[in-house]
Amino acid sequence: MGKIMMGPTTLVYPMPAFLVGANVDGKPNLMAVAWGGIANGQPPMISIAIQHHRYTYRGIRQNLTFSVNVPSVDLIRQTDYCGITSGAEINKVEVCQFKVFYGKLNNAPLIEQCPINLECKVVHILDLGSHALIVGRIEETHVSESCLTDGEPDVNKIKPFIFTAQPASQYWAFGEVVGKAFSVGQELKARE
Amino acid sequence: MGKIMMGPTTLVYPMPAFLVGANVDGKPNLMAVAWGGIANGQPPMISIAIQHHRYTYRGIRQNLTFSVNVPSVDLIRQTDYCGITSGAEINKVEVCQFKVFYGKLNNAPLIEQCPINLECKVVHILDLGSHALIVGRIEETHVSESCLTDGEPDVNKIKPFIFTAQPASQYWAFGEVVGKAFSVGQELKARE
Repeated sequence: MGKIMMGPTTLVYPMPAFLVGANVDGKPNLMAVAWGGIANGQPPMISIAIQHHRYTYRGIRQNLTFSVNVPSVDLIRQTDYCGITSGAEINKVEVCQFKVFYGKLNNAPLIEQCPINLECKVVHILDLGSHALIVGRIEETHVSESCLTDGEPDVNKIKPFIFTAQPASQYWAFGEVVGKAFSVGQELKARE
Repeated sequence: MGKIMMGPTTLVYPMPAFLVGANVDGKPNLMAVAWGGIANGQPPMISIAIQHHRYTYRGIRQNLTFSVNVPSVDLIRQTDYCGITSGAEINKVEVCQFKVFYGKLNNAPLIEQCPINLECKVVHILDLGSHALIVGRIEETHVSESCLTDGEPDVNKIKPFIFTAQPASQYWAFGEVVGKAFSVGQELKARE
């Protein structure tokens, strides 16, 4: 078959890295998360997976709100730092020199320096084992004006990055555009 | 603030594109999905969001199994094609010339040409509105031997690609490695 089996694993799946924010005991905290994804179209929802013992999770349960902040490659050190430290011991906002603001929800901390900020209200929490899967309804989306082109968010300015776990845990920049979606596949219609 | 508000939207979130497989009435079918993400560590789980009326969703409900197949950029046409056609009308496996195999679960169709194949058993289905959020336990992971380096999956050989919805719907290749995870953030520890 030309295939090897690795057993059940999450390690080979690529995913964008982002910062999840929550107020814990009234103070903003951030953690790096790569396990998440869009969960629904209408209404817009996103899911994130977080270990139960995380400090940020405590804040999410206190307020039933959280933020998803998509960092640019310029924030790679800060993002990684928020993944290797705990808000129980360190004020990450201070160390990372993040400017925090609040939007429609008044207790989901948003990071000014991150080009994209989603404000989310918790609608479901599933206990799946090591992690809680938290589904949040996106209540508002903020985009940095400096990352717009003709009024639309521009990925080339947002510069998000991807996390891969295997073989080495690494962050990757986006490369070139390889095709237009809902379009390049049209070629195969001739084969129908 | 230098921010614009876009209202609640899923459009600005980047995500890897993949093919979800299911047997529908006993026959393998695939659809392109970008809304998904790892949902749990132990046991390993993944979530995918699919509209209720999708043909593939019918198969997932019939068997309570599905596959996640990560395509390489070489399969961009086939992946896109599986996102703009319905298995109710077309035999996508035939048109795309996919070689289907089965693994540990005998009814979750896996695509030989995709470097990564996850076999999943449904553990939760949440009806969130336009989409069902399906959480699957990863029962087995297959990786193409040609995509290994020293026995480990190698992203440079797997060549996954990313989907972005805004401003234009596009697929992106991975670019360069911009940092080592759980490492580049160490620099900020000096600021604590």
